[in-house]
Amino acid sequence: MARDADNLKGYRNTALELLTHAALSTGDMVVVRTRHGEMSGILMPRYESADKDHIVIKLKSGYNIGIDISNIESISKTVKLRNQETSIRTTNGETDKVTTNFEFKEENTWELFSSEKVKRDLPRIALISTGGTIASKIDYRTGGVKSALSAVELYESVPELADYAIVEPEVLLSEYSENLNTQHWGLIAKKVFEKWRSDDYRGIIISHGTDTMHYTASALSFALQGIPIPIVLVGAQRSSDRPSSDAASNLLGATLFELKSNVTGVFVAMHAGTSDDTIACHIGTRVRKNHASRRDAFESIDVEPVAIIKDEYVGVRNGWKSIRKRERSSNHNSEIHQFSVKPNFDPRAALLKFHPGFDPQLISHIIKLGHRAIILEGTGLGHVSRDCFPEIQKALNAGIMIFMTSQCIWGRTGMTVYNTGRDLLEMGVVPLSDMLPETAIVKAMWVLANSSNSDSAKKLMQENLAYEISLISPIL
Amino acid sequence: MARDADNLKGYRNTALELLTHAALSTGDMVVVRTRHGEMSGILMPRYESADKDHIVIKLKSGYNIGIDISNIESISKTVKLRNQETSIRTTNGETDKVTTNFEFKEENTWELFSSEKVKRDLPRIALISTGGTIASKIDYRTGGVKSALSAVELYESVPELADYAIVEPEVLLSEYSENLNTQHWGLIAKKVFEKWRSDDYRGIIISHGTDTMHYTASALSFALQGIPIPIVLVGAQRSSDRPSSDAASNLLGATLFELKSNVTGVFVAMHAGTSDDTIACHIGTRVRKNHASRRDAFESIDVEPVAIIKDEYVGVRNGWKSIRKRERSSNHNSEIHQFSVKPNFDPRAALLKFHPGFDPQLISHIIKLGHRAIILEGTGLGHVSRDCFPEIQKALNAGIMIFMTSQCIWGRTGMTVYNTGRDLLEMGVVPLSDMLPETAIVKAMWVLANSSNSDSAKKLMQENLAYEISLISPIL
Repeated sequence: MARDADNLKGYRNTALELLTHAALSTGDMVVVRTRHGEMSGILMPRYESADKDHIVIKLKSGYNIGIDISNIESISKTVKLRNQETSIRTTNGETDKVTTNFEFKEENTWELFSSEKVKRDLPRIALISTGGTIASKIDYRTGGVKSALSAVELYESVPELADYAIVEPEVLLSEYSENLNTQHWGLIAKKVFEKWRSDDYRGIIISHGTDTMHYTASALSFALQGIPIPIVLVGAQRSSDRPSSDAASNLLGATLFELKSNVTGVFVAMHAGTSDDTIACHIGTRVRKNHASRRDAFESIDVEPVAIIKDEYVGVRNGWKSIRKRERSSNHNSEIHQFSVKPNFDPRAALLKFHPGFDPQLISHIIKLGHRAIILEGTGLGHVSRDCFPEIQKALNAGIMIFMTSQCIWGRTGMTVYNTGRDLLEMGVVPLSDMLPETAIVKAMWVLANSSNSDSAKKLMQENLAYEISLISPIL
Repeated sequence: MARDADNLKGYRNTALELLTHAALSTGDMVVVRTRHGEMSGILMPRYESADKDHIVIKLKSGYNIGIDISNIESISKTVKLRNQETSIRTTNGETDKVTTNFEFKEENTWELFSSEKVKRDLPRIALISTGGTIASKIDYRTGGVKSALSAVELYESVPELADYAIVEPEVLLSEYSENLNTQHWGLIAKKVFEKWRSDDYRGIIISHGTDTMHYTASALSFALQGIPIPIVLVGAQRSSDRPSSDAASNLLGATLFELKSNVTGVFVAMHAGTSDDTIACHIGTRVRKNHASRRDAFESIDVEPVAIIKDEYVGVRNGWKSIRKRERSSNHNSEIHQFSVKPNFDPRAALLKFHPGFDPQLISHIIKLGHRAIILEGTGLGHVSRDCFPEIQKALNAGIMIFMTSQCIWGRTGMTVYNTGRDLLEMGVVPLSDMLPETAIVKAMWVLANSSNSDSAKKLMQENLAYEISLISPIL
């Protein structure tokens, strides 16, 4: 096997010299000993913008780390030969030629789709790729990030997956999520439904841009109510080819959650806290992107995450026992009659965030645009200035439904506490308790397309369909 | 002194019996021993809706607690006689008549505005009341809460203040804060300026409804840039007459911060965490109401609070050493020339929150309404769907300034990372880094009224005027 720079993609100068001398290739499983300790993982390729003094290892947790070569005392290669593991140790600067045996390379565990794996009869998971950072790499021309990797490439970049499941990838969309709209939601919902109907998948993973992943998670929660398998949306805050990428660990976490938990529904799996190896799995209607760039940007709001995934352990919260348990029928087809997809959304709903100095005429414009519902993001317990009352009354008179949420994000509306709230209730504004504004606008669009009249729409908006609203009164 | 129900306002049945028997009045300093421990504080009045089995004690921390009378083993009264403290103990059900001496009552420390206090030459603080829950009590007709207490009443309800400062209250407005607009901001700013100019106050406290307190704090931060004393907005999530009210402790915290810290500027002081006795003091432009009902609803975003106040201790964060230190001039008037109020705001700015299915025509409507600036709450690093590009271009061509913030709340815009961001930058959308959307809309309204043209307005928007924006590049 040739030992040229193609096998050590992106490495330059001293790092390239070391790795060439040690006869290593990217993709090799290596053990690195430094003065700070020992770590093992897969030697990753680097990119042109990378510096020359670090090598990058993908740890078992899926997290990539960069190691300064000046700290390396030794670097060794581990090769798995059938059921036998052989360690080939190479001291920094001096290769132990006796144990270097590259004929074993073909038998590495990192060979995907190998017939051996399939024979092991691993559970099968469908991976639907829709785009976003998780499927993107650095654009060398601009220095920015562009959508590029296919689901296949993505899967190949997370070889650890092959230890747990047969993942069957398919590219549905290749869009940054800010460009997704209500029609895309319907498209994804229908694809999930088809996948579920066509085969006996243990779960379905949807890779998605993080910008609007929580909106899509809400949309699928309503469109796929009662789906008897887990659907997990997964994204990355750092692109897959960056050393700090969270793509692999999030994907692994989603896979483990689908394999090891027995809950069904729509979820979002992303990094939890600042820990490198902990993933949280959130209810699709109760999650929000709360940081523009951090890997732990996604948080469950007003509830705890459904599950925490750490290493190979999946801990499902007791509090979420109420989630429908998966009961796998021996006759898969019998489930088909119990569940159908409702993929339609009507975008004629608007979200308006109130603030001091808010122009009430924005409300009248909603009437002119032909919208059928307004989600207000009020202050505190669900308030807007009394200056808005005439325009709100006008909109209600025109048959537009107006729902109230709180811009505080945490907590719930409480419109009977103050005169402002009571006046709005009397006019006909409908409070949505602890439903997130982001979930409320998605639900309104789904309800508009799935109810016959305003009364049933208003009723549906206040019902708990997918854990989006809890009706327990809080202690004020 | 008469021992009738007027002295035990609101107490009924068994609680009234106990307190009458023990010869206590509301306002008395008492020590209560229960099987859970001993606590001391001021016996508070109760209100008609209160149950008959609890008495309410205001602790030294300012926090009110309710005590179930069935748990009370003894209740005693503490009277301060000049410098001598005498304890008058009354066992539950059997009053010790020998030590009950009500002639000492007049010398209680809880007598406010006493000539003795003034003689002690305490620092003076101005308290401007604008309304809100902190100045409200339960409306017995509706069971809700209405704005009712004047600043004087409010001050009288927090007698502990008299230990630290002469607080000079004045009622400016009596409004729930959702009804405040840009003109109110100007009014409050001018009042603060007048107060500062007229007298040598150590600081000024503004009591305010919590719904939009952070918007007003931002507005004052811009209007009162360079004010050489601390201005602290303070509110309550529970009205002053409720046992769990946070009004007193927040007001005390604000007072201690003004007395014991040496920083100047505009701040918000509210409960921190779930602790009963810890108050956080936040930078006026960096704080957000993040919960609809909890007492610790207010949080500093992307920065730490400036100070933590616990009991009588005020800890100012080292990281905030950059805040202008107060340098008290011997000649107070010399400061007047260095600082002036800029109280004008132009409300022709709109805040639009983007979401999937967002109707781009909302942007064109802003043009028709004659607005001069739009703050977009984009997704992630500052994105909107490309479906919005034509309308954004149209608005920019019409001379409307468009600024980008992130709806993630935490983190900052990063518009050079993805194509979407770069395209928006190229069109002329101006990113506002980590400025909060709520702060951005307030700043835009202030900038529009305080700049001569679009170029200077755009420049001013991107400058750090009152800690609202930090330009340090984040590690992505």
